[in-house]
Amino acid sequence: MRDFTYYNPTRIIFGRGAEEKTGRYAAQHGKKALLHYGGGSIKKNGVYDKVVESLRVAGVSFVELGGVRPNPRLSLVREGIALCKREKADLVLAVGGGSAIDSAKAIAVGAMSEKDIWYYYEDRAHAKEITGALPVGVVLTIPAAGSESSINSVITNEQGWYKRGLNSEALIPRFAMVNPESNYTLPAYQTACGCADIFAHLLERYFTTVEHVDLSDRLIEAAMRTVLNYAPLAQKHPQDYDIRAEINWTGTIAHNSLLDRGRIGDWGSHAIEHELSGVYDIAHGAGLAIVLPAWMRYVWDRMPNRFMQFAVRVMDVDLSFNAPDLVVGEGIDRLERFFRSIGLPTRLSEANIADDRLREMADKAGPVGNSIPLQPDDILEIYTLAL
Amino acid sequence: MRDFTYYNPTRIIFGRGAEEKTGRYAAQHGKKALLHYGGGSIKKNGVYDKVVESLRVAGVSFVELGGVRPNPRLSLVREGIALCKREKADLVLAVGGGSAIDSAKAIAVGAMSEKDIWYYYEDRAHAKEITGALPVGVVLTIPAAGSESSINSVITNEQGWYKRGLNSEALIPRFAMVNPESNYTLPAYQTACGCADIFAHLLERYFTTVEHVDLSDRLIEAAMRTVLNYAPLAQKHPQDYDIRAEINWTGTIAHNSLLDRGRIGDWGSHAIEHELSGVYDIAHGAGLAIVLPAWMRYVWDRMPNRFMQFAVRVMDVDLSFNAPDLVVGEGIDRLERFFRSIGLPTRLSEANIADDRLREMADKAGPVGNSIPLQPDDILEIYTLAL
Repeated sequence: MRDFTYYNPTRIIFGRGAEEKTGRYAAQHGKKALLHYGGGSIKKNGVYDKVVESLRVAGVSFVELGGVRPNPRLSLVREGIALCKREKADLVLAVGGGSAIDSAKAIAVGAMSEKDIWYYYEDRAHAKEITGALPVGVVLTIPAAGSESSINSVITNEQGWYKRGLNSEALIPRFAMVNPESNYTLPAYQTACGCADIFAHLLERYFTTVEHVDLSDRLIEAAMRTVLNYAPLAQKHPQDYDIRAEINWTGTIAHNSLLDRGRIGDWGSHAIEHELSGVYDIAHGAGLAIVLPAWMRYVWDRMPNRFMQFAVRVMDVDLSFNAPDLVVGEGIDRLERFFRSIGLPTRLSEANIADDRLREMADKAGPVGNSIPLQPDDILEIYTLAL
Repeated sequence: MRDFTYYNPTRIIFGRGAEEKTGRYAAQHGKKALLHYGGGSIKKNGVYDKVVESLRVAGVSFVELGGVRPNPRLSLVREGIALCKREKADLVLAVGGGSAIDSAKAIAVGAMSEKDIWYYYEDRAHAKEITGALPVGVVLTIPAAGSESSINSVITNEQGWYKRGLNSEALIPRFAMVNPESNYTLPAYQTACGCADIFAHLLERYFTTVEHVDLSDRLIEAAMRTVLNYAPLAQKHPQDYDIRAEINWTGTIAHNSLLDRGRIGDWGSHAIEHELSGVYDIAHGAGLAIVLPAWMRYVWDRMPNRFMQFAVRVMDVDLSFNAPDLVVGEGIDRLERFFRSIGLPTRLSEANIADDRLREMADKAGPVGNSIPLQPDDILEIYTLAL
């Protein structure tokens, strides 16, 4: 096990009607919020009205910036930063899923910086130059990204469609309101994309070369099995509170830093996927369902024991040392069948992506992978396997 | 799943040499610390010297109060409070295990209160009257109580040997330095007691009547299996870093509030044990190894399915619906054999406790148990089963 620091101070308020208490927590951190969200879904399902009413009751004023899209854009972030500075907002409140939250985090950093915000995203090393950020609060409506209590933010620069991430303690939200009821109206496909994202966060952490990480192995396996069990159930019973609650809580825990303490995750698949959703603007979760099985098939023999453990403990394949390749292969096949069963594409062709830009994306992804380092040529092979 | 709030802001610095960085974190929270610890072990194993040196380098002055004993005493807490007030200490730094930390937490509350500290412990409802506490820092040398990032503190009033607990967010330590190397000199028996305590924290959370808590069930099972695997290994290889690290990290996670979000733990066994260690001053972990199997045998048929799940998923008993009593019984037998295998008593007689004060203890424990409510007569039966 490696040395580590664990620090995750987000206050999670989880349960029925949580969004109605937003104002009370917002008032602890600011007087004037930038209310940041995506499209119309929070207005249709009533979340927007409840949040606005709770801010009013708590005496927190606000300005609004809607229009966040999946794979949130740098241009809107810059607009939010200018708005915060002009209006002297002292809190950024994201209402939505990972895109709204990641965009809000970028705005929170930019609002306290003289530098253009992309500076911090274009090179991971620049994160340590962050000197402050406005406090971020969250009303979560889509369990997927885990951004509600993570140190991460990913945004896309439309100039060249670069999708880049920033990691910093300054980005950890102060509070997050999580009400599984707000997922009742999530379409089945979006539910599936969210579950794929959660599963991928777990899988990236799982495939490590660090040894003696048994507790976190088992905790990750526990969370992965929960996703496998509950994703299909949420599609069958979209308005079942307990089913939505299991997925929400798993989504938060999958990405709040707890499960990778003492180990180093791989994150190659995420980087390989970011090119897909950056260039083709497909849902991140759908892209992951395409990339993960191909990545696994390409790399498994670099760490066969860990892939065996995954197949046996997570995918319930019978342990056998006679033919590790069959055990591992069956584990990967079962994962791919799981993604298909919840309606996700697992091949590029199913997402209408042809082979004409694979080389370009592989080169742009660059070297990736902490556990299993991959070069652009490897990435091209993985894209090709996924055709 | 029940509605919940999750908030655990302790910064955990985990790894080799962690105690040498104590001063750096202490300086973020105070200028003058009360250094609070137990007996001579931290002086023998060098931890004391390293902590003192790091405080010196960081410019944090300190006064000292040693002498904390297992089942920490109210009288020493009062002494610490007076010392903090007199010396104007603005930080309490516990070096040791759960006893030193729990005592430090009590001092931290008392130092900011006009009321006598026992007022907050004698009635759980008084916790909400706490208006502040000095910041608490921890250098952990014994993985067991999980107090390094918990909201809990348990102290013993020598006047009548009442052992009572206090739960409040004000008690959450600001930082905890955790170096598994500091466990290398822990005797095998103390290692076992710590592991029993960790296991009990998990088991109390596991036995809930709240339904639809699958993720946390699985996370708790993951942690329980880790204890079962690593407790004997730590005794065989006391100076193996990774083995000690698995137990340390499990001990923290077992009690940092994460694993019981959305559910209500039972805590009956803890209350039944507190009378034992309160009256007979035996180690809390040893008392738990005695109480848990007896409690389980007495109550299992009130929630047979959950006990089946425990037997199958944690103790690896074969699932069978033909004879649930045999499956559950085998699960409990295996747990008792585990405690014996690491050198713990599992019967009162093995701890030299006779039957003459059972009635008195049962009456003092009073009604206990959230999941399975027990009256003094039930508790007497459990003590009797454990003879």
